[in-house]
Amino acid sequence: MIGVLGGMGPLATADFFQKVIAETPATADADHVPLLIQSDPRISPRPAAILGEGRSPLPELLAGRDRLISAGATALAMPCNTAHYWYADLAEGCSVPFLSIVDASVDELSLRADIGASIGIIATRATLAARVFDSALVRSGYTVITPDENVMDNLVLPGIALVKAGESMRAGALIEQAVQALLNRGARVVVLACTETPVALDALKSPLRLHCVDSTAALARYCVAWWRASQARSRVAT
Amino acid sequence: MIGVLGGMGPLATADFFQKVIAETPATADADHVPLLIQSDPRISPRPAAILGEGRSPLPELLAGRDRLISAGATALAMPCNTAHYWYADLAEGCSVPFLSIVDASVDELSLRADIGASIGIIATRATLAARVFDSALVRSGYTVITPDENVMDNLVLPGIALVKAGESMRAGALIEQAVQALLNRGARVVVLACTETPVALDALKSPLRLHCVDSTAALARYCVAWWRASQARSRVAT
Repeated sequence: MIGVLGGMGPLATADFFQKVIAETPATADADHVPLLIQSDPRISPRPAAILGEGRSPLPELLAGRDRLISAGATALAMPCNTAHYWYADLAEGCSVPFLSIVDASVDELSLRADIGASIGIIATRATLAARVFDSALVRSGYTVITPDENVMDNLVLPGIALVKAGESMRAGALIEQAVQALLNRGARVVVLACTETPVALDALKSPLRLHCVDSTAALARYCVAWWRASQARSRVAT
Repeated sequence: MIGVLGGMGPLATADFFQKVIAETPATADADHVPLLIQSDPRISPRPAAILGEGRSPLPELLAGRDRLISAGATALAMPCNTAHYWYADLAEGCSVPFLSIVDASVDELSLRADIGASIGIIATRATLAARVFDSALVRSGYTVITPDENVMDNLVLPGIALVKAGESMRAGALIEQAVQALLNRGARVVVLACTETPVALDALKSPLRLHCVDSTAALARYCVAWWRASQARSRVAT
């Protein structure tokens, strides 16, 4: 059973759940991945904490992690890019594998963009400031392009807030322009490194999704692959 | 935190999660209902057990119930109508309220159909055979109309199987005809008493949804109302 540390925000977690199902080759219930999903929207806001304006959600995240493991999770995933700021703290001392959304996204990117390519990132200001993705991208040989201040203030941040308020279609129109701005500046592929942003583009069925790596879908595929491999291992062992 | 005993099937549980979010008046993450969702597709098939052709899932359901309570659930819900065959066994000795999908659906029906009206039910053969809904409907003064054998074999059961296989659009075309057949026979409202069936009609954006009570959405609204009331009670108490 894969434990999901979610609710940041709830709609992004529901989108992750749908994408795990969609990415699973299944003809009946029993083919699907067992999940235990904590959708706790009360976890302290991540961006404020990273930017030094609020208390750290780390104790709450650790409590959620341990709750999921106690309840039987054999691996963990967290469909929130910003919360991966605390990934090292969460993975440390964790008794089960903690599947990273950054690793999942960069793995997928490597199939889509050659080394040396410029990669755009759509993310919260906190994810960008904390450089959650940068080291993994740079290590893989990519150059990073981030939205300029104008795009952040008028498109990315209002788009994310609209998804959190249930206005995914309106959000889509803003996020689409933000993706286009990065493509115009030479991005070969844009990583949707905030799990609210694929919800927005999906609501609009935006054709620009073809130019993006959806971090939520990447993590979903990573989880399905992990689960199937773990099942195969247990069949070999018995 | 509301515990969700799900995975029967996974897509119906994901639909329930989406509907809880959609039914919540929220402008930010923190307004949403905290959920702990077990999506365990390995639970023994419910229809076979009810029809005497397979082992009972009750021990697995009780284990799931107790896992969710141990992990902190303060109420429970189960977005699967067929599994409500074991509702009394699950509610007995349960230390937290177990919110029933049957009660939620009948409550909603009472706003939509006058006493004495004929009510159609779309459900698995097991839910119909076990009369999961009948006593609650009859107690409320309704007359029940169920699909005939031909509609069950050619529309309802293949439609449910298609949703479980990820073919919601194709399923929608079948379920829509099943609903229409019940309306033609005089049903005032049709209860979608299998949580796969609203997924099918939603995929098609079927206009017939206006004539239906969606048991998944009814349970979602019931959960949101319970959570908001529990929050108001705890504010009064402190």
